[in-house]
Amino acid sequence: MAKPKKQPRPKAETPKGFRDYFGTDVTERQEMLAKIAAVYHRYGFDPLETSAVETVEALGKFLPDVDRPNEGVFAFKEDGGSEDGTWLALRYDMTAPLARVAAQFRNDLPTPYRRYTMGPVWRNEKPGPGRFRQFYQCDADTVGSASVAADAEICGMLAETLEAVGIERGDYIIRVNNRKVLNGVMEVAGLSGDDKEAERGIVLRAIDKLDKFGAEGVRQLLGEGRMDESGDFTKGAGLSDAQTDIVLGFTNAKRDSGAATVAALKDLVMGSGAGLQGVEELEEIADLLAAQGFGADRIVIDPSVVRGLGYYTGPVYEAELTFDVQNDKGQTVQFGSVAGGGRYDDLVKRFTGQEVPATGVSIGVDRLLAALRAKGRIGGTAPGPVIVTVMDRDRMADYQAMAATLRAAGIRAEVYLGNPKNFGNQLKYADKRESPVAVIQGSDEAARGVVQLKDLILGAKLAQEATLEEWKSQPAQVEVPLADLVAQVRALLDRHG
Amino acid sequence: MAKPKKQPRPKAETPKGFRDYFGTDVTERQEMLAKIAAVYHRYGFDPLETSAVETVEALGKFLPDVDRPNEGVFAFKEDGGSEDGTWLALRYDMTAPLARVAAQFRNDLPTPYRRYTMGPVWRNEKPGPGRFRQFYQCDADTVGSASVAADAEICGMLAETLEAVGIERGDYIIRVNNRKVLNGVMEVAGLSGDDKEAERGIVLRAIDKLDKFGAEGVRQLLGEGRMDESGDFTKGAGLSDAQTDIVLGFTNAKRDSGAATVAALKDLVMGSGAGLQGVEELEEIADLLAAQGFGADRIVIDPSVVRGLGYYTGPVYEAELTFDVQNDKGQTVQFGSVAGGGRYDDLVKRFTGQEVPATGVSIGVDRLLAALRAKGRIGGTAPGPVIVTVMDRDRMADYQAMAATLRAAGIRAEVYLGNPKNFGNQLKYADKRESPVAVIQGSDEAARGVVQLKDLILGAKLAQEATLEEWKSQPAQVEVPLADLVAQVRALLDRHG
Repeated sequence: MAKPKKQPRPKAETPKGFRDYFGTDVTERQEMLAKIAAVYHRYGFDPLETSAVETVEALGKFLPDVDRPNEGVFAFKEDGGSEDGTWLALRYDMTAPLARVAAQFRNDLPTPYRRYTMGPVWRNEKPGPGRFRQFYQCDADTVGSASVAADAEICGMLAETLEAVGIERGDYIIRVNNRKVLNGVMEVAGLSGDDKEAERGIVLRAIDKLDKFGAEGVRQLLGEGRMDESGDFTKGAGLSDAQTDIVLGFTNAKRDSGAATVAALKDLVMGSGAGLQGVEELEEIADLLAAQGFGADRIVIDPSVVRGLGYYTGPVYEAELTFDVQNDKGQTVQFGSVAGGGRYDDLVKRFTGQEVPATGVSIGVDRLLAALRAKGRIGGTAPGPVIVTVMDRDRMADYQAMAATLRAAGIRAEVYLGNPKNFGNQLKYADKRESPVAVIQGSDEAARGVVQLKDLILGAKLAQEATLEEWKSQPAQVEVPLADLVAQVRALLDRHG
Repeated sequence: MAKPKKQPRPKAETPKGFRDYFGTDVTERQEMLAKIAAVYHRYGFDPLETSAVETVEALGKFLPDVDRPNEGVFAFKEDGGSEDGTWLALRYDMTAPLARVAAQFRNDLPTPYRRYTMGPVWRNEKPGPGRFRQFYQCDADTVGSASVAADAEICGMLAETLEAVGIERGDYIIRVNNRKVLNGVMEVAGLSGDDKEAERGIVLRAIDKLDKFGAEGVRQLLGEGRMDESGDFTKGAGLSDAQTDIVLGFTNAKRDSGAATVAALKDLVMGSGAGLQGVEELEEIADLLAAQGFGADRIVIDPSVVRGLGYYTGPVYEAELTFDVQNDKGQTVQFGSVAGGGRYDDLVKRFTGQEVPATGVSIGVDRLLAALRAKGRIGGTAPGPVIVTVMDRDRMADYQAMAATLRAAGIRAEVYLGNPKNFGNQLKYADKRESPVAVIQGSDEAARGVVQLKDLILGAKLAQEATLEEWKSQPAQVEVPLADLVAQVRALLDRHG
């Protein structure tokens, strides 16, 4: 029989834009998500987990961010490409699947339906530094409530959530605005009407870039357009100077107090019914939040927040972390946005034809984890297991029994399972695993019914800094009776807290 | 401007073979996985989370189950189908990604590398009742240890895991076997040699169906073949009667004690070096488990377990739940397998050319959840939030403040955010949410500084079964001072435990 030609070996590589998470990167995220879920749960939200895969039909053909092309999702035919297979795709966010669920189960779900969800989403986009094609989102939404109390509640919940995961009061601010106010401003500026939709879209995205480009950059985008550093030109909305002044007046309308901001906004939208309604909703949100104890130190009305997504129809909100970090270029900047959301009243309508008012927030899980790392709240290395070393290969059962005894006492422990020939490798392994203690028993110790316990943390410390005196007075290795194994190991673990 | 033609509405449907998980279905799974992770962690395993997407090259073109065609995965081009895009696919199990990680990070990971992982996997297969295209797996593997102590440890850990999640001792059994013994038996039966690979594959899969088809069915599959009830014929391995007797003798070699089973197996593989080594490994596993306190009430040597996967090279193990349940046809059957695994020494070699011994277990998360449901360990409805009803729309801030007060005291609470016009709808909503208590405050109560608390659990009970006397003596609605809101709500919650 002819042997088949040798295939080249496959490459052991994560696909471009994807990554693996090891150890504490997994558990720290899980712990943070559990804390978030506890707050969401306390606010009455119920868990939902949709599948990663949706029909392309249900997702819609577009990503919500209108800047982006129609592509951007990972799509595939369900049966591997035959003519009659259904087109499926990985979800690109949590809102589109929620709209599908709200429509599909509308007769069974309570109204309003309050749900939270957390999990990965996928984007078929060009990956970049820190920009991955799979990342976590953690959302809470109220579907079926037209009341701005629902929006206010989510803003308050967002503040509590940030504090629950470890962002201190004063290190974050939640900004609230209302698209209706912006629509009112556009009306006043002469930008209402179906034929001005393109201009309104450009205005929206221009304001959303206020942080990035500053007022002058936004002014250019509102007018003829803007040339970036590389020479690329972005066409503007073509507004007149007067129109531009009105729009920029809106983004600058934030005053020292909420009441003063509201008064300024009222002036700006004078004559627009939608605009006035928007301002009144903002007032109502401010009142509701005040009643729940959320002052301007945590949640403020800020007209510069618009959120880029086209589908928002009312209140929009954003959580920003205000402490300083160094950016890639070594500059000191504010950490920035970690969560955002708003009211979207048309997503369920796509399916049912009926308007279903909804509002919700999405937390950028990786951003928030990065923030906690920057604040030193997480990011330590977790202690490894106690390592029972193998001195005599034929006494493996004894070593396993020691590990079992330790585990039964709730102590993380394992027997070294590599090749035991070289004892140095066993200690190197213990070192790599950040093990606090190594248990050693040769035949001599076994005969005497004792074990050696090596304090690996103290050992490492002594090796670095101890004088000979200290070394002698603090032995990093002690001999104890086998019967005292648990108590003595626990004493060593307690020594290092 | 001509209006675009109306598009038909998209269907609000989960894709075929996928499903959504609501409420306790989400939290009960999370809680079970957290308990499993705690055991794995105590055994020294570290968490790993790979991305859902792998290159097709890294996954290999095949699912591990050799019965299945080459298809079976959801694959797609990374950039939407252009010529030079890389083919990607959703992972179909957790072992293939682990092999990739072990190869990719071999210089950074400790050796042995012990990792656990939990998450969804995807199969592009025909869905059926209870058969989904996305399901959870929860795996633990030791990569880089040739010692059967690694296999024994995982068997013991599996027993502890089952007990940790709520399967009582006596309700499960872990069966251990060794492929080398089977290979020895095949050698004795004259089925060794490269030219007999196809026959060996058929034998393997035939034995794996012992539970399903019984000894007679397996005998047919080992011989000429087997016709099923529908008339479909499966070609057999074509063994002679003598060969079949040897193979079936192997599957029947289980005796009352492990020692007797081992003796029977030794007889069967006499003359085969590999077979004898396999039996010795089984003896060693039994000794190691005994030393850790795992007796034959929990873990047994059972030659009838072979596991269908082609890639196993040594010990194989399977956890079976032994309590009775009703199957689809109303028959009383044992619950059956919920986890399995074994030693696979060639998966990492695909990438590196170097043999890397590995062993690991996979828990079928949905099966195990179904078992816990069957035993009544999980499956209750979780209590809903306290509902603060809305009597006066313009006092929304007051109601939100009440909810905030309750939450600050750790009580799950929300304000009704639907249209408050119809009070009956508010109580219906509370009912649907399984709310224990409704808080009611009209303008009259507000003026007097009180609230009404409606005990919805007692109310439902009284409505069903109470006499008039009981109804009067146990008022399901009480008026309490607003200042006592938290204490009085807590008293009602405590009343129902």
